[in-house]
Amino acid sequence: MQFILVTYDIENDRRRTKIHKLLEGYGLAVQYSVFECFVSDEEYAKMRMRLQKLLDPKHPIDSVRYYVLCRNCVERVDIDGNRDFAVESPFIIS
Amino acid sequence: MQFILVTYDIENDRRRTKIHKLLEGYGLAVQYSVFECFVSDEEYAKMRMRLQKLLDPKHPIDSVRYYVLCRNCVERVDIDGNRDFAVESPFIIS
Repeated sequence: MQFILVTYDIENDRRRTKIHKLLEGYGLAVQYSVFECFVSDEEYAKMRMRLQKLLDPKHPIDSVRYYVLCRNCVERVDIDGNRDFAVESPFIIS
Repeated sequence: MQFILVTYDIENDRRRTKIHKLLEGYGLAVQYSVFECFVSDEEYAKMRMRLQKLLDPKHPIDSVRYYVLCRNCVERVDIDGNRDFAVESPFIIS
């Protein structure tokens, strides 16, 4: 399993909502456009393929970024302000 | 030096603008509320302290999250859509 941070910038409201809803099936929104996902390699590939279909390849700004974090990096996360936990798993970030 | 991904959710427009401007002094906005910074330990501590002063500790939602990425994790970043490079350094993410 992998810990993947997904961040996105999507201009169109409908498209952004679809992307947000899709990601809810793979992880937890820790901020409006930031998801923490704890997924297998297969799930990651499928999630990314489904998201690519929702993206407008010609849009100048829209983007989705995927940061795959190792256990070490996950354990070094710092949070200020609202500290909602992310994925309930061994990778609990507190 | 460290690669630090900073993501934030700030409700108030003025406060959010101040935080965005402050982060511009430490890294590159790769998405509206996502910065990639390449900073020393001292710079990270100072950046975080300055950001904490801008945060409203009583706000129920506002938050800033800091993901410190090792070289391995930086090199595994995937991007779909707009592929603006982040920090011009050995940690170029393409």
